[in-house]
Amino acid sequence: MTTASPAGYPATDRSTPTRSKERAAYDRATVHAILDQGYVCHLGFVRDGAPVVLPTLYARSGEVLYVHGSTGSRPLRGAADGGLAVCLTVTHLDGLVLAKSAFHHSINYRSVVVHGTAYQVVDPDERAAALDAIVDQAVPGRSADARRPNAKELAQTAVIRLDLHEVSAKLRSGGPNEEPEDLALPHWSGVVPVITSYGSPEPAEIPGQDVPLPDYLPPLPR
Amino acid sequence: MTTASPAGYPATDRSTPTRSKERAAYDRATVHAILDQGYVCHLGFVRDGAPVVLPTLYARSGEVLYVHGSTGSRPLRGAADGGLAVCLTVTHLDGLVLAKSAFHHSINYRSVVVHGTAYQVVDPDERAAALDAIVDQAVPGRSADARRPNAKELAQTAVIRLDLHEVSAKLRSGGPNEEPEDLALPHWSGVVPVITSYGSPEPAEIPGQDVPLPDYLPPLPR
Repeated sequence: MTTASPAGYPATDRSTPTRSKERAAYDRATVHAILDQGYVCHLGFVRDGAPVVLPTLYARSGEVLYVHGSTGSRPLRGAADGGLAVCLTVTHLDGLVLAKSAFHHSINYRSVVVHGTAYQVVDPDERAAALDAIVDQAVPGRSADARRPNAKELAQTAVIRLDLHEVSAKLRSGGPNEEPEDLALPHWSGVVPVITSYGSPEPAEIPGQDVPLPDYLPPLPR
Repeated sequence: MTTASPAGYPATDRSTPTRSKERAAYDRATVHAILDQGYVCHLGFVRDGAPVVLPTLYARSGEVLYVHGSTGSRPLRGAADGGLAVCLTVTHLDGLVLAKSAFHHSINYRSVVVHGTAYQVVDPDERAAALDAIVDQAVPGRSADARRPNAKELAQTAVIRLDLHEVSAKLRSGGPNEEPEDLALPHWSGVVPVITSYGSPEPAEIPGQDVPLPDYLPPLPR
């Protein structure tokens, strides 16, 4: 079953959570914002009937996600063979939610889950653009300030694409839920924010080198 | 094929990475340390032949991982029916690695991937201990300072267990790899640390309440 959603992605059976449905979102702005803040996803696929979940870098370019890897890696080889069913998940952790009751403990987070079939990118221009996008996803502006891949490196690198068709976001924010009868209990309740930030860039030790820190480092918090 | 590994988990076909094998580790101390530093995993399972990857809380207790969820949720129902094939992955991001070449850009990280079959926990004592462990995994000491689940809450909560049998860690640290011919290029190279920390705890607004901040908040960096 697919529910029409004019402003966003259609809600399908598998993109509709079985619990906490009120936390789900399907609009493109919400989904894009969550995807654009990250650069590491967890990519799931099926191998010999069993699930495999691996962390990997990704980039969003319009309504497409790109993931790269060694041409010898399992999911990349699978995607070359007529497509690979995948689930790509991006999660940002925002806080620990401590309630009076153990039951209402939770986390504040923003996540996106993408279901679909991933295909290997064979067009050389699209592949080159995707590789730039993956570098720029983590450090915007960096791909223009690095040596581009040569033929040997390109031959070792495969890129897969996953179109944003069946996509949902899930978000929780705010303080703990409490049962009315718990409110007077003497346990602290509230939220402990979880903050992800960048430390001071650490230059590689290369003899005779004195390259100034580029303006794009550390990346701005997004 | 299983390779004997006296000090750790056996390396099997699917727990051996196809690339960067030198980054893999199977010893229990390394695996436990990575698992113990986190509390959010990405749990993968297969539904109607397709992979699903969802972020969820977990706890480690000895050689067992516990995950909880609504009794109505898909993976939890699957685990009640004779076990559910899962892949549970925990990832810590430590840094962005910027090389002279786009090709050698990378991330520093520590991850653990667990393959296996998850089963629902039916023993009430094990289930209660697992729920405490999940709270304490994120905030050590918290389960003793919260109202315990009542019968109604327990009826809504399922717990699954996944034994640590087929487990591998993968780690990258240190500076960028460089091709010798790239060393003189005028691009900055090095590492930008990624730091996860806690902000000031934000108490819930509960009229008339003045519970002091407990000693275990914010949780100590581990």
